Amino acid sequence: MSQPTAAMLVIGDEILSGRTRDANAHLLAQKMTGIGIRLVEIRVVPDVRETIVAAVRELSARVTYLFTSGGIGPTHDDITADAVAEAFGAAIGVRDDARAILESYYKPGELNEARLRMARIPDGARLIDNPLSHAPGFVIGNCHVMAGVPAIFAVMLEGILPGLAGGPPILSHSFRVMMPEGELAGPLGTVAAAHPQVSIGCYPFFRLTAGATLILRGTDPEALARAADDMRAMLAARTDHIEETPPGAVTENAE
Amino acid sequence: MSQPTAAMLVIGDEILSGRTRDANAHLLAQKMTGIGIRLVEIRVVPDVRETIVAAVRELSARVTYLFTSGGIGPTHDDITADAVAEAFGAAIGVRDDARAILESYYKPGELNEARLRMARIPDGARLIDNPLSHAPGFVIGNCHVMAGVPAIFAVMLEGILPGLAGGPPILSHSFRVMMPEGELAGPLGTVAAAHPQVSIGCYPFFRLTAGATLILRGTDPEALARAADDMRAMLAARTDHIEETPPGAVTENAE
Repeated sequence: MSQPTAAMLVIGDEILSGRTRDANAHLLAQKMTGIGIRLVEIRVVPDVRETIVAAVRELSARVTYLFTSGGIGPTHDDITADAVAEAFGAAIGVRDDARAILESYYKPGELNEARLRMARIPDGARLIDNPLSHAPGFVIGNCHVMAGVPAIFAVMLEGILPGLAGGPPILSHSFRVMMPEGELAGPLGTVAAAHPQVSIGCYPFFRLTAGATLILRGTDPEALARAADDMRAMLAARTDHIEETPPGAVTENAE
Repeated sequence: MSQPTAAMLVIGDEILSGRTRDANAHLLAQKMTGIGIRLVEIRVVPDVRETIVAAVRELSARVTYLFTSGGIGPTHDDITADAVAEAFGAAIGVRDDARAILESYYKPGELNEARLRMARIPDGARLIDNPLSHAPGFVIGNCHVMAGVPAIFAVMLEGILPGLAGGPPILSHSFRVMMPEGELAGPLGTVAAAHPQVSIGCYPFFRLTAGATLILRGTDPEALARAADDMRAMLAARTDHIEETPPGAVTENAE
């Protein structure tokens, strides 16, 4: 079974200007890893129609699933829906199903022309539910168009996850040692070369003394366990202080 | 004076797997805005040589300055220096100036083969100083290759900023109002259309009641002030509660 792939397209001047620190790509990355989909690229682009169209075309052709965040609100700079429609050669207009959702949410008279823009959905697209603020996202082709506001992005993503075809979950096994990575690098390369099925990364950190976390990733539990055995032996010959995190545990890196 | 542009290439499986949340692109975005350089793309790619080579070639051809972070340490997955050299068609090997820096830092016997990989610098590249852990970054063509560890990336970036040719600083003036963006969107579009020199974004947030922050950006202080006057008048006709942040102030968005 080959592993499905994904790309994330973050749309918004506010990320590129440094005003806002994007949170959506990191959440997507964690969720994709959890269901065995390999995220192969994150790209952040400005609110420029040609740029969005080109990025959607290029990325959607290259991956199993494309996800976008941002640019689907009611204001003049919200151009994602139109750009994605153009990328897929689809017509776009206010759609009855999306309008009905907005009508049921807003009080009479509140659904003005600007808000009605949020019911612009490309022909043939499937709506993505938004239990928080109701304006829907949509799926066209392999492209999942979601909101930029992190809480809304998160709730839309939770809604679509069960419908994605994941691969074997990506398991992870990590070791944390208080040794500089420069002293581990040689024997680490040997362990990595002996286990081509497992992706092994080394992420140094700095405390009062130097340390490193070694992460082993793969989809085959037995290959992963064998690589972890070799790694443990290699490390034990060099240090007494090893913290080991077997598959399944989630860690947050603040380093 | 036309505005210089920049792109950021973040290199590392750990970002795409969700293990690590990238901090370097956000810092770069803020610094670029501060010196009048327009960041036009952020891209995150895995530790795959062909992918890095292709991204460096494409992005460096498109912008004034390209910045990379990650993949210049001593371990088997640190392949950025070799990939960047290939992208620029430059030879690469352990260079005497970089080796001398490492020799002055490590104790005799500590500078092993793996650590010496950090002295692999493309021919013709200029070194970037690393006061924290000494292994240098480098500049080749318009591409600035820096470390992935945030503290080291930050100190390298501080070192190169004075040498970059910035444009007129991007000024920002913002208004924060407790109104839903859907009610502002129509008149906001009118203000935006009247001030094409100024980039105007609307970033909604949700509290007990709905609010929105309007950001006006541009390089011409007078055009920005005129747009702010129009915006203030438009808002004052609709709400009594306006928080205004004139150019120069830095705000953090936690919404």
